[in-house]
Amino acid sequence: MAISHYELCGKDPEILFSPNVWRTKMALAHKNLDFETIPWRFTEKDKIAFSGQGKVPVIKDNDTTVIDSWDIAIYLENAYPDRPSLFGGDAGLAGVTFIRHWVDTVIFPACAPLAVFGVWKLLDEKDRAYFRETREARFGKPLEDICGDPAERIEALRKAFTPVRSMLSQQSYLGGDAPLFSDHMAFAPLQWLRCVTTHTLFEDSDLIQAWLERMLKAYGGLAGDAKTIR
Amino acid sequence: MAISHYELCGKDPEILFSPNVWRTKMALAHKNLDFETIPWRFTEKDKIAFSGQGKVPVIKDNDTTVIDSWDIAIYLENAYPDRPSLFGGDAGLAGVTFIRHWVDTVIFPACAPLAVFGVWKLLDEKDRAYFRETREARFGKPLEDICGDPAERIEALRKAFTPVRSMLSQQSYLGGDAPLFSDHMAFAPLQWLRCVTTHTLFEDSDLIQAWLERMLKAYGGLAGDAKTIR
Repeated sequence: MAISHYELCGKDPEILFSPNVWRTKMALAHKNLDFETIPWRFTEKDKIAFSGQGKVPVIKDNDTTVIDSWDIAIYLENAYPDRPSLFGGDAGLAGVTFIRHWVDTVIFPACAPLAVFGVWKLLDEKDRAYFRETREARFGKPLEDICGDPAERIEALRKAFTPVRSMLSQQSYLGGDAPLFSDHMAFAPLQWLRCVTTHTLFEDSDLIQAWLERMLKAYGGLAGDAKTIR
Repeated sequence: MAISHYELCGKDPEILFSPNVWRTKMALAHKNLDFETIPWRFTEKDKIAFSGQGKVPVIKDNDTTVIDSWDIAIYLENAYPDRPSLFGGDAGLAGVTFIRHWVDTVIFPACAPLAVFGVWKLLDEKDRAYFRETREARFGKPLEDICGDPAERIEALRKAFTPVRSMLSQQSYLGGDAPLFSDHMAFAPLQWLRCVTTHTLFEDSDLIQAWLERMLKAYGGLAGDAKTIR
């Protein structure tokens, strides 16, 4: 039976933009697992109450429910050890774990200000008040003012990707010759921006852009073919 | 026969401060290999001419000469596969490689302005002109002006270590339960600053400080017992 995967959407149930959900989606595809997308909106807490909390990603694999993109990746790795590895063993896990923390503390914060107002615009009316209230509290300013100058934000994002750029001069993926979950984690916030904004993030000549395009084409174009506002 | 290890020094041949040399020294200790330190000064190019270039670290292991701290680590891993691993296999290597690029592009540049004038002060008279000329060209200003306000530099360094701090809330080393070469790479520029400055880099309550102390105590206190200007 296909794994049920709850994915955040807005008014349009086909624009599935959440960065944490994209981590899980890429991990499911990496493991070559069948999954069924269940579109979910921010305020539909009842629909995922079975998971004991109110955020996505949530997966349901037969009788097993798992939440949180990191815990889901660990679950998939252990539950499907014969499928392509997301971590590459214990020492691989240490490296992927560092990249997780780097993405969470450097890349995600560089992307979020560029994304939030775009997310709000996509939302269903009933979700907008919830989103505005929680995000304005988090950033301490009105949604409309969070981004500031997008060109400056994009410049900072390009700079934040410096270690990846440096690494990509010698290998094709963060994971080496093929993606690991580290690639999915670094890719997910960029896919978020692809879904909800029309900004050009990287120059065509940037090694990050070439990697991004490889990630968009991976798994039969899962991310590249996804519906966005573009 | 012990491996010969050429280590940069200044006037005092016992203060061995080079960050790239510390990477190699920690790697040799990690592999539990005997090595003999050969103190070396910046302008003693003749002494390492056999290596085909003019920088340290250089190691000589019987008939094999290897240069560059990264290539030396790879060499040691392959030449001594039965000793504790520096990378933890192929997937481990991918993670350590990312940390290498993160250290080179984020941590090293955050440390260098704090270190350079201190290095110059330690140097032998005959090395000072060479060092001043090459570093002033690199930074585009007089040695005395490179650091600016050390408090601001230290604040930026603390911030640069955010992903490690986040990771250390869940594990003891970048490598997991024990150090990998990633730990040595992140540690080396801090040991450089310990050798050539008297700054307090991290608060006692900082998880980075606790990790730093574990690294100083590792391998029988190799780094902690090393002579510094302190």
